[in-house]
Amino acid sequence: MVATESSGVAVRCAGTIGVVASVAMNLAFLAMYINRHYFGKRRSDNGSDSSTEITAVEPSKGKPPVTQDSVVNLDQGDPALYKEFWDGTGDRATIVIPVWQTMSYFSDLSGFCWFVEPGFEREVRRLHRLVGNAITDGYHLLVGTGSTQLFQAALYALSPTENGTPMNVVSLAPYYSSYPSVTNFLYSGLYRWDGDTNTFTGDKCIELVCSPNNPDGGIRKAVIKSKSAKTIHDFAYYWPQYTPIIEAAAHDIMLFTVSKCTGHAGTRLGWALVKDTEVAQKMIKFMELNTIGVSKDSQLRAAKILKVVCDDYELSPIGKVNHLFHFAQRKMAERWSRLRAVVATSGIFSLPDELSSYCMFAKENVTANPPFAWLRCHKDGVEDFEGFLREHKIITRGGTKFGVDERVVRVSMLDTDEAFNVFIGRVASLK
Amino acid sequence: MVATESSGVAVRCAGTIGVVASVAMNLAFLAMYINRHYFGKRRSDNGSDSSTEITAVEPSKGKPPVTQDSVVNLDQGDPALYKEFWDGTGDRATIVIPVWQTMSYFSDLSGFCWFVEPGFEREVRRLHRLVGNAITDGYHLLVGTGSTQLFQAALYALSPTENGTPMNVVSLAPYYSSYPSVTNFLYSGLYRWDGDTNTFTGDKCIELVCSPNNPDGGIRKAVIKSKSAKTIHDFAYYWPQYTPIIEAAAHDIMLFTVSKCTGHAGTRLGWALVKDTEVAQKMIKFMELNTIGVSKDSQLRAAKILKVVCDDYELSPIGKVNHLFHFAQRKMAERWSRLRAVVATSGIFSLPDELSSYCMFAKENVTANPPFAWLRCHKDGVEDFEGFLREHKIITRGGTKFGVDERVVRVSMLDTDEAFNVFIGRVASLK
Repeated sequence: MVATESSGVAVRCAGTIGVVASVAMNLAFLAMYINRHYFGKRRSDNGSDSSTEITAVEPSKGKPPVTQDSVVNLDQGDPALYKEFWDGTGDRATIVIPVWQTMSYFSDLSGFCWFVEPGFEREVRRLHRLVGNAITDGYHLLVGTGSTQLFQAALYALSPTENGTPMNVVSLAPYYSSYPSVTNFLYSGLYRWDGDTNTFTGDKCIELVCSPNNPDGGIRKAVIKSKSAKTIHDFAYYWPQYTPIIEAAAHDIMLFTVSKCTGHAGTRLGWALVKDTEVAQKMIKFMELNTIGVSKDSQLRAAKILKVVCDDYELSPIGKVNHLFHFAQRKMAERWSRLRAVVATSGIFSLPDELSSYCMFAKENVTANPPFAWLRCHKDGVEDFEGFLREHKIITRGGTKFGVDERVVRVSMLDTDEAFNVFIGRVASLK
Repeated sequence: MVATESSGVAVRCAGTIGVVASVAMNLAFLAMYINRHYFGKRRSDNGSDSSTEITAVEPSKGKPPVTQDSVVNLDQGDPALYKEFWDGTGDRATIVIPVWQTMSYFSDLSGFCWFVEPGFEREVRRLHRLVGNAITDGYHLLVGTGSTQLFQAALYALSPTENGTPMNVVSLAPYYSSYPSVTNFLYSGLYRWDGDTNTFTGDKCIELVCSPNNPDGGIRKAVIKSKSAKTIHDFAYYWPQYTPIIEAAAHDIMLFTVSKCTGHAGTRLGWALVKDTEVAQKMIKFMELNTIGVSKDSQLRAAKILKVVCDDYELSPIGKVNHLFHFAQRKMAERWSRLRAVVATSGIFSLPDELSSYCMFAKENVTANPPFAWLRCHKDGVEDFEGFLREHKIITRGGTKFGVDERVVRVSMLDTDEAFNVFIGRVASLK
């Protein structure tokens, strides 16, 4: 694929500046050089590594490959599923950052938030207009080192410092397993985790609304009606590949992340749409104190990637079945279909009911394909389902971490094909 | 400069694969294409922007340019001084990240810290061996979103959760103005800011030791001798351009940052060298909860930049006067010389005494050139020196933020030549 990419460069080059056919050999030579120079060693190359100045830093490979006998780790939601898509896009979303560029702390001193790269903000707003999953007009856009950091910035911004008692933070069980630990790890006097929304009896709180919900894929709305309750909407998974887009959301604080939208988890980039100016300013204050802004390199890379996603849909609508959301939706639907079939024949497992609805993005009725399977075990004698699966070399995350019982686990649906296939095979063998 | 870079590519290309002279015209054409394709619009190009797919995202420019009449902001230590150096290095430290690379959350599951890019760790350890400013053997290396985040990780790791009373955090005044706010902003029950080390009367505390010290450039050692006291050494400025390298430091926790080493502040990357395994593990835990790791794009870029710094010194030692630390040391020395001359003739200002010592890196006696000028005003009637300078359109940071009086200010010595020149001119005009 690398060779194809660079040949593509040379081919477009020829088209662009009209290099004539007689120099094709030289171009081929040069294409090979560019390939090695800019994209490193060819994957099929068994010879010695030639000059690779620009890619001299070997990037990491993520998790090790899965084999038939190995442990399959589906605990975290590492979005490896997306690599296949990006493998096929050539160099269009490749980022090049010259060393003298983007050195300053400051991105845009004339903008609302000095550490947001204008190009990143532009592409994010464009993406929401394309997908229709959130209103951006009238909202401030903030960037964070993943949406996790922005979640903490929001807790900070919504918790008054005056009265001395921490704000209660609640979420309907099963809730995302990180909410309690991220809320409590610094023993903040501003806020504290108070558990399941259903058991909360006060009126002043921050309610976390994750929709589609991690771990079970449910469509969630805020539960607490008190005027003193504030909400943070975690929309990490509110993208067409996971769920029908049923409305353009317009809540006070909405969190998104590149990780689960395009699969670039290592870029560690999230964003928040924030309605209230004072709340947004307090969130910026948190970001200044916590990390003095956010990696510009990640913002430039994410901007480039989101631009390609939008360009694909806007400039080549006719080929949309091959664009990001359609590709990922198809992959997810295939995986869910296989998992549901295996679960149906197992006799001992169950999954939440399938949800379907009209999707404003796809412009048709579609079925939800949540990023996690919320798998329940009904087999007699299996009380600790996470432990039971671990004995079968499948690593998942047990229900107690999500505030419910231990006969249910969360399984990532976003890992590699290899890992998913081994997982399906092992589940099928369990009776 | 961009044109030169790409011509350089073509020239080396020719040398590498032996393209003969007869195709020089084609190469020139292609070099122009590569230039535009990979490095965007030529700076001297006034025509329309041709195909610039790979650089379609316009990076931010940092702070706006300074003119003779404009406000000069020397409050933050934005390291703009380094741009001149990197402008002259061509494409050797340019980073290219293909879209399908480095997507996973995980960098190295076999390493001590799963989110540290192996290439980044390798270059950091190499850099310390080159400069001789810190021992790395036997130390764990962690990465953070700037050293600010690692500072918080260290507070978290050094504060026991059991006893219910927060650890006192102290530092000798004048101390870095961010220490109090970063320590206290979340009202953590684990630690709390307790001010100047000199006024601390207990024995159990975390002492912050910044050396050379921000703001005054002093060489600092830990003051508190109690066995219950723990230390965090902030070595953001312990590099040869700022201070003689007097020893290879070997403290329990040592923090460094790319921002003040190479000038890439926007990359938001710091690192920690940590001796104790349990402390390092707790710091990793903090990083997982706070941001689920650190931007890989920034780590890859920083690795590339540090590699070029090391390569320059190790592979071309004869040209060392033109390499990073020598360049920056010369720039800093020129600026300090001009500032000291202006201050000496002012009659109303003073600076800390010049420090000099044998530098193990430069292998000669050198004078320190701190990143900040700690400027004191002796003019009658000027109580609020920061306010006085602001009236003359010079933005600085006043002494009270550093725990001392308001007749002293901190002035960044790292800004652009233009800003520094205007600053010097204005200071010279004040009597």
